[in-house]
Parts: sequence; C-alpha cells; structure tokens
Amino acid sequence: MKPKRTAFFVSDRTGITSETLGHSLLAQFSSIDFEQIAIPFVDTTEKAHRVVDRINLAAEAEEARPLVFGTIIDKNIRTIIGGCAGFTIDVFSTYLEPLERELGIQSSYSVGKSHAIVDKESYDIRIDAVHFALDNDDGARTRHYDKADVILVGVSRSGKTPTCLYLALQFGICAANYPLTEDDLDDLELPAALKPHRKKLFGLSIDPERLAAIRNERKPNSRYSSYTQCVEEVRHAEALYARFGINFLNSTHASIEEISTRILESAGLKRKLA
Amino acid sequence: MKPKRTAFFVSDRTGITSETLGHSLLAQFSSIDFEQIAIPFVDTTEKAHRVVDRINLAAEAEEARPLVFGTIIDKNIRTIIGGCAGFTIDVFSTYLEPLERELGIQSSYSVGKSHAIVDKESYDIRIDAVHFALDNDDGARTRHYDKADVILVGVSRSGKTPTCLYLALQFGICAANYPLTEDDLDDLELPAALKPHRKKLFGLSIDPERLAAIRNERKPNSRYSSYTQCVEEVRHAEALYARFGINFLNSTHASIEEISTRILESAGLKRKLA
Repeated sequence: MKPKRTAFFVSDRTGITSETLGHSLLAQFSSIDFEQIAIPFVDTTEKAHRVVDRINLAAEAEEARPLVFGTIIDKNIRTIIGGCAGFTIDVFSTYLEPLERELGIQSSYSVGKSHAIVDKESYDIRIDAVHFALDNDDGARTRHYDKADVILVGVSRSGKTPTCLYLALQFGICAANYPLTEDDLDDLELPAALKPHRKKLFGLSIDPERLAAIRNERKPNSRYSSYTQCVEEVRHAEALYARFGINFLNSTHASIEEISTRILESAGLKRKLA
Repeated sequence: MKPKRTAFFVSDRTGITSETLGHSLLAQFSSIDFEQIAIPFVDTTEKAHRVVDRINLAAEAEEARPLVFGTIIDKNIRTIIGGCAGFTIDVFSTYLEPLERELGIQSSYSVGKSHAIVDKESYDIRIDAVHFALDNDDGARTRHYDKADVILVGVSRSGKTPTCLYLALQFGICAANYPLTEDDLDDLELPAALKPHRKKLFGLSIDPERLAAIRNERKPNSRYSSYTQCVEEVRHAEALYARFGINFLNSTHASIEEISTRILESAGLKRKLA
C-alpha cells in the first residue's frame, strides 16, 4: 500500500488556482497517496483560525505534517494560516514581492480579482461561448458555422462535446461540432454543411478498442458499439481527414485540457479570456 | 493609457497551470495592461530555443523585460527557458525541491502527469458528468435526479447551465438543472419533479436589471425580457427558496468558478477529480 499524506488547498477565494497548482505538484510524487482537502472562501480571521485548528489536528493524527497549498490574498489571513503546523506553500507569499519589485508598483491585493468578474465583457464572452457550443452541438444546427472559431468533426463518442464545452469555459472559444455518420464516411465526402468551412475543421480520432468500450457503456452489444464497426468508422474518418487536409488528433490518451490546448495551437486560435 | 507589459506562459505540457497561476498573480497588478501569450507543448530543446528567441525579441522591442510564467517539468527545457532575457517564475523550480525534501522522495518528473489521463476512472467520471449535465439540462429529463449530486433551480438565464457544465468538467460533479417557470412561481409550490429531491436543490438568483439585460440580448423587447417580468420572477424565486429552505446565491457579481465552488461548499459535496 502507498504511504498516505494529507494535502490542504486553502484560499480566501475559490481556491481554483491553489488546487490547480497543487495537483500539478503532487502529480510529480505518484508513489504517495494524497488525501486532498479543499477549503475555499477562508475570508475571515475566525475562519482562518478554524482552518489552522483543522490542519493541526491532522498533523497530530498523522506521523507527517500535512502539505498546505495556499492562495491567500489577505495578509492577515495569510499570516494566520502560515502559523499552522503544516508544510505551507503560498504562491502569493512567494511571488508577489519579487513581482512588485520587477514591475515597480505595489500589487492591489484586491481580494478575488483573479476569479471575480473583472469586466462584464469577458463574462459575456464566456457564457456566449457555452451557449454557442450547446446550440451547435452534434450537428443539430449548422447555420451559425460562420460564427464558429472552430468546428470539431469526428465519429460518435470521440470526445467532441466535452472538448467544445471546455474550449468555451476555459478560453471563451466558440466551438461547434459535427458528427461523422456512416453515410458521410462511406463515400469519403465532406458533408455539405461543412464544405464552406473547411479551414475551420479539426478532427478527433480515437483508438477503436477504446471507442468500442465507451459505446458499449451506452448501448451494450449493439452494432454501434461493436469492435468491427468502430474500426471501420475510425479508419474512414482518418481517411477523410487525410483526403481533405484536416488536422486531427487522437483523443485516446489525451485529457480534455490537452485536446483543447492542442486544438488552439493547431488552429492558431487566440484565447479570448484573460 | 495604462503602461503595457508582455507576459508569457510557457509549458512543456498544456500550460493550464501556468496560465491559471499567472492570471491570479497578474490580476493583482491591475494598473498594467498585460499582453498575454501562451506557449504550450514546448517539449523539445529546439522548440525551447525558439521560445527563448521570441522572448528575447520581445525584451528588445520593449523597454521592460517580459514576465515568463513557466511550468516545465523537463529539466533541460527548463534550463534553456531559464536563460531567456525575461523575468522568469517557474513553479517547479521553486517548489519541487522543497517538496522533495519534505516528502523524503524524488519527484517523478513524469512529463504531463498532471493533465494527462492518469487513470481511466477519473476520465470516465468527468465525461459521464458532462453527459449527465447535458442530458439533464433545463428540466428536459427528470427521471435521473436520483443520480444527481445536486440540482440547480432558478429562473431562465440565471446561469444554471454553464454552472452545471463547469461543475462537471472541473470537479466531476453530476449536476442537473431545472428552470422555474411562471407556473411554478405563481403558486409558490415546488414542481412535482423536484419534491422528492428537496435536499439536493440549490437555487440561483440574479439582479433583475442584469437578468433583463441578458434576456434582452436573446429576445429583445419581449415580455420575457422586460424589467417588470424579471423583477416578478426573481422575487417569486427567492420567496420559493425561503419557503422550502433552499440554499441559494446571487450570481450577478460572481464568476462561474465562484458560483460552482460555493455550491460545493454549501452542499458539502466532495470533488471527484484529483
């Protein structure tokens, strides 16, 4: 059994940054089993003291002190948390001072600037992108394709929809998606709706074994989920990409983050959210 | 006009971590206008040298050196990037060594551990949660509510759908949502489909002015988007929350991250993705 260790993610805001950073760092120590506890919105000194108590209790109960990843903007709260018995890493403590020196100004210490709505504009961009992805999912509508930043194509269950939604939420990108059906694949032709938008197309592929497994959970023992069918569809889809010079990637071993970021790179798309 | 400065986010993987951290730090310096450039997948020494050239060019073109936020696991590439003319911050350089000492083991330096698929299980949890959110959006289906971790309720355009999708993608939470219509609101009764799941309900509210603005973009000058109508609906929705003891929050000035994280807190839900 792996050795265990507790890791806290503490923030006076959402804590998304400390969780993201903490996950990246902890992933480098895969031989340890980390019990991960997120404590966001620690925005009063009272709450901060309670968090310290909780960390100290964990430190007593275990043989090793807990790791504490913090993104705490408020100085008083940061100081209180810093006094806990854990091994603390706080990115604001580490980096704000050197950045202030480099930039020659004081940081605003504005609580929550990072994930609060800074301007209505970027909030709207994001929500509009989510609704765009939903309205233009699965080839349901194609008349808005001129407004799409990218149009994902691929066989059913190759990962198009989650990728479109991630592109919308994380980057504000308007992504439509269109499923390649057997009819499209048999004659190796681009569906008519896609022809005018060839430059916006990006393909997803997937290993047939994995595709069959995914489809089997949805429709067990069907033709749709049979290995033979999956092999055929994937082979034709890749042939279609080759024929029309459509960039594509294989989603089998990639996370949604990776697929999305690679699409941005490949399509030369600029992030719309800061 | 605000002074300008360039910031690069460089990674040998997706760069999501360096972007997230960089945004949080830069948000503390709101008097500067940062030109933000993401360069992910810098995974060969050749690419690394090209990135250095690009940063150095920016340094020459501007009066101040660019900021460089890095999450680079590969040591050779990290060293090359570290030699650029920018002001570099690399979270792995900063934190991996102290963490190795604290944990008493070497880190794996395994490229991409953080955002690659580490196990099929958490990948499936996430994709299933996305499909759950889509299948149970807007009250379309209610028969799967026993599988929901949380059911968001609120008037049309109060932010339910984007929040459900964020909960799915970021945390692997299965969130359904149900729109409160005029009929539900008029008699201040819980819709029948929601009654058995009262403990899973979480309400969204929104300022009527903002709601009217959002609805106006979709259906201009309609009864649906009129200020009077929005005031009425919001007032009734909040009365319904009060009557049935449903926790709720006002989404007007909150980001999707904040709404989602507060829902997790309030509902005592555990994150399903590490």
